[in-house]
Amino acid sequence: MKIITVSREFASGGRELGKRLSDLLGFDYYDREIITAIAENKGLQEKYVEDVLENHGWRAFPLTYHSSMVGVSAVSSISAGLLIEQKKVIEQIAALGKDFVIVGRSADVVLQKYKPFNIFVCADMDSKIKRCLERASEDEQLTAREAEKKIKMIDKNRSRTREIISGSKWGERGTYHLTVNTTGWNIKDLSRATADFANAWFEKSK
Amino acid sequence: MKIITVSREFASGGRELGKRLSDLLGFDYYDREIITAIAENKGLQEKYVEDVLENHGWRAFPLTYHSSMVGVSAVSSISAGLLIEQKKVIEQIAALGKDFVIVGRSADVVLQKYKPFNIFVCADMDSKIKRCLERASEDEQLTAREAEKKIKMIDKNRSRTREIISGSKWGERGTYHLTVNTTGWNIKDLSRATADFANAWFEKSK
Repeated sequence: MKIITVSREFASGGRELGKRLSDLLGFDYYDREIITAIAENKGLQEKYVEDVLENHGWRAFPLTYHSSMVGVSAVSSISAGLLIEQKKVIEQIAALGKDFVIVGRSADVVLQKYKPFNIFVCADMDSKIKRCLERASEDEQLTAREAEKKIKMIDKNRSRTREIISGSKWGERGTYHLTVNTTGWNIKDLSRATADFANAWFEKSK
Repeated sequence: MKIITVSREFASGGRELGKRLSDLLGFDYYDREIITAIAENKGLQEKYVEDVLENHGWRAFPLTYHSSMVGVSAVSSISAGLLIEQKKVIEQIAALGKDFVIVGRSADVVLQKYKPFNIFVCADMDSKIKRCLERASEDEQLTAREAEKKIKMIDKNRSRTREIISGSKWGERGTYHLTVNTTGWNIKDLSRATADFANAWFEKSK
């Protein structure tokens, strides 16, 4: 079974890259599907699940989640429960035994034993602000400055969640097999180049 | 003109990757040649030049080297002179107008205006210690612990030099186009995959 995990800075184009990789390689694709599954399993609204996981997850991790984890003082039982459910859902996906790409959710940590190919996607701040403004909904009306603030806040939460779950650092080079900077690329071209690189990895790992 | 710069953690296999990239792509290759040129131009011994640049470079940078540089208090005129000479040599190489790969020497900073493709090479500590011990000379006789200490010291110097020269951070994801982790790879296979990726970059940049 071949697994690619995509971790990414907010608004770096990582989600699009992940989706395109799955299309190019013929792999299944998981992203929001995981939120949907958690919401269904727990009888909660998707929006609520997403909000807890994205914004409060880092405060919420139980001490028993991962052996390397230490010193989490603020545990909220609601978000802890959701993070455990998320882990369960990701493990169920892997149990299907089919090749897949998964975006976000610290999946590289959860799936460690399956030896996934782990990609981190980044971009420079200007490109991220541009992408953030382009995809903002009509009623959001962000200024560039607000977009930058939003990007930094979301990445800070991702970073904290990651460190609590895994003990390893979010976005740090040694944690991933490949770190790609989307700045200057068309994501379509970059996806093709990244798919070739991933294929070479799977080829030599046979 | 196509330029690839390779920055790397000590003992990550970055030099071999750079050499192989140049072979695969048919580019010129520069690494120690730069030390040799500086030594010749300045009438100094190669070993001395290397020692100053590798171990004391970070303390030595002149305030006028780069516009974004600030607050360098300990300037040694000897190593400052060598760093300026190094910059000159790198610029002379670029002036030849031929495609090339250059390893180390903060070349991505010096060559910025040529829009090089910038690669950073890393590996996990165990792989680096293994590589360091394998290539240690007979009379060096390092233990694993000494190798780790050496790796950390050299990388610390590289990091300091880089930050003083450029204001940007050594090894930080956003600074490079691609960050590759050599752990688990045969450098030969990895070089082929990386050459394909670089080709895709140059192709889309046409």
